[in-house]
Amino acid sequence: MKLIRFGAYEQEKPGVLLPDGTMIDVSAFGEDYNEKFFATDGLNRLADWLTTNADASPVVEEGVRLGSCVARPSKIICIGLNYAKHAAESGAEPPKEPVIFFKSTTALCGPNDRVIIPRNSVKTDWEVELAVVIGRRASYITEAEALDYVAGYALHNDYSEREFQLERSGQWVKGKSNDTFAPLGPYLATKDEVPDPHNLRLWLSINGQTLQDSNTSDMIFYIPKIVSYLSQFMTLLPGDVISTGTPAGVGLGLKPPVYLKPGDVVELGIEGLGEQRQVAEAWKP
Amino acid sequence: MKLIRFGAYEQEKPGVLLPDGTMIDVSAFGEDYNEKFFATDGLNRLADWLTTNADASPVVEEGVRLGSCVARPSKIICIGLNYAKHAAESGAEPPKEPVIFFKSTTALCGPNDRVIIPRNSVKTDWEVELAVVIGRRASYITEAEALDYVAGYALHNDYSEREFQLERSGQWVKGKSNDTFAPLGPYLATKDEVPDPHNLRLWLSINGQTLQDSNTSDMIFYIPKIVSYLSQFMTLLPGDVISTGTPAGVGLGLKPPVYLKPGDVVELGIEGLGEQRQVAEAWKP
Repeated sequence: MKLIRFGAYEQEKPGVLLPDGTMIDVSAFGEDYNEKFFATDGLNRLADWLTTNADASPVVEEGVRLGSCVARPSKIICIGLNYAKHAAESGAEPPKEPVIFFKSTTALCGPNDRVIIPRNSVKTDWEVELAVVIGRRASYITEAEALDYVAGYALHNDYSEREFQLERSGQWVKGKSNDTFAPLGPYLATKDEVPDPHNLRLWLSINGQTLQDSNTSDMIFYIPKIVSYLSQFMTLLPGDVISTGTPAGVGLGLKPPVYLKPGDVVELGIEGLGEQRQVAEAWKP
Repeated sequence: MKLIRFGAYEQEKPGVLLPDGTMIDVSAFGEDYNEKFFATDGLNRLADWLTTNADASPVVEEGVRLGSCVARPSKIICIGLNYAKHAAESGAEPPKEPVIFFKSTTALCGPNDRVIIPRNSVKTDWEVELAVVIGRRASYITEAEALDYVAGYALHNDYSEREFQLERSGQWVKGKSNDTFAPLGPYLATKDEVPDPHNLRLWLSINGQTLQDSNTSDMIFYIPKIVSYLSQFMTLLPGDVISTGTPAGVGLGLKPPVYLKPGDVVELGIEGLGEQRQVAEAWKP
C-alpha cells in the first residue's frame, strides 16, 4: 500500500494512493496514520478494510495539498554522514558507528509545501534522504530482526541551516528543527512495495540543476544496522521516523558553498518513493 | 496548583497535590496533562473545576507510584553547560549562546522509578535540573514575553550515559535517551507557585553524599532567554519540556570520575519543587 495524508496543515485526512494513480479518501476507516494506528496492526486492518471499501471511497481531487504521509511521530531521528562522499564534502571522516541526531517533530510538513528560510538564516541547505517508518515498539533488537519492526519507507528532505547547525554553539539539532524543515512523502510505501531499500536511486535538483544523484546502496550503515543500533540507545515507537542520511551534493559541499534564496525551486525523488517539490520563501512575521 | 500523575506506567491518572499535602484524583476532570490540555487553557479550566469538585475527589493513597507530572510531550529539549562550574568540570568553555540538545521522550518516567543502567553502559551519570513546561505554542517570541508561554516548573534528573554521549561518534542525544533517563516530578508547580525560578536551591546526593548543591541563580542563561532563544530555531508546543542545565558535581566531573552501579541511591531536590529518589538497577532482558 501507499499511504497519503491530504488537506489543510494539521487537519490532514488519511488516504491511499492506488496502483493506477488514483488517490482515495479513507477517512471512513476512522484513523490517522499515527502511533496508535501502527501499534495496533493498522496496516493489515486497513488493507482488509480496503478489500470491501476501496470502491466506495471518495476520490481525492488532483491538486489537493498533501501533508506529511504519517502523523506527527514521537520522534524524527536522523543518521549523519551515512554516505562516504557526503562525509568528505562536510570535512568529516566516515563515522565508525552511526551518528545520531534529532529534528523537532514540528518541522514536519507536506512534500510540496513551500520551505521557509528561517529568520536570520544565511545557510539553508537541502538533503534528500530515505526515511524509514517504524511499525512496532523496538528496544534492544538485533539486526536480524530489525526489518520486522519497519512499517515502510518515504522520501524526506532533511533541510538544514548550516550556520545554526555548525557555528552556533554545538549540537546539530539547532539547525535541523525549524518549521517546514522536514517534508515527508508524498506517500509511505509499505515494506512489501520496496523489495530492496538498499538499491534505490535518489536525487535532488535546485532550479532544474541536479546536485545530488546517488543510490541508497552507497549508505555506510544499512537499515537493519541503523534500526538495531538506535534501539540500543532509545525505545523506538510505532510511527517514529528515521532518516538514513544524505549523499554528496548539498550546498555546504559545493565550492563555493551555495544556499537557498527565496524563489529557488527544490525538486527531489527516490526511485519507487515518489517526488517532492518545494519553493523557498523568506520568513515573514 | 501542583499537578501530579499517578498509577501504573503509561496508565497514569491525573491528580492534584493540595497545599495540605493531600493528593486527590482528578480523573473526573476527564483530561490528562498533555498538549491539548495546556493548549486549551487547561490550567485555568482545572482550577475552576477544583473550586466545586476538589472536596468530592477521591484521595490518592500514600505510596502509590507517581508518574511523570506531565504526559509525554512532543519534545524534551535540554540546555547544555548552563552553569559555569559544570562547563569547567566537563572540560568546556562557558557557551556564548545556549547549547541545545534533545532527549527521546520515551526516556520520561516517574520521580521515584528505578533508573535502569543501560545494557553495555559503563558511565551512567546524574544531572539535577530545573525543567520548564511550555503552556502555549511559541515561535519567534521575545525574552520580554517568554514567561507568558510558560505553564510551570518541575524537578528533572537528566540522566546521561557519558560514553554513549561523548565517545560514540558525536551528538549527545545518544547518551541522553535511554528508558528511565528522564524522571520528571513529583509535580508540576504552576508558574504562580514559583515567584522567582532563578533563586532556588537544587541538590543531588548519591548514597547520602551530597554531590551537587547549587542555586538556579547560577545559570548562565536565564529562562526568558532560553525560551525566546529556542523559539528562533523551532516551534515550542504546549506541554513541551525544557530542562535548563545542571550545576557542578556530576560523576564525569569527579576526580576520578564516578558512575552509577546497581543499588546506588540517587536523591535530588529543588526548593519548592519537591524531591526524587531513584535506585539504580542493571538492565535485564
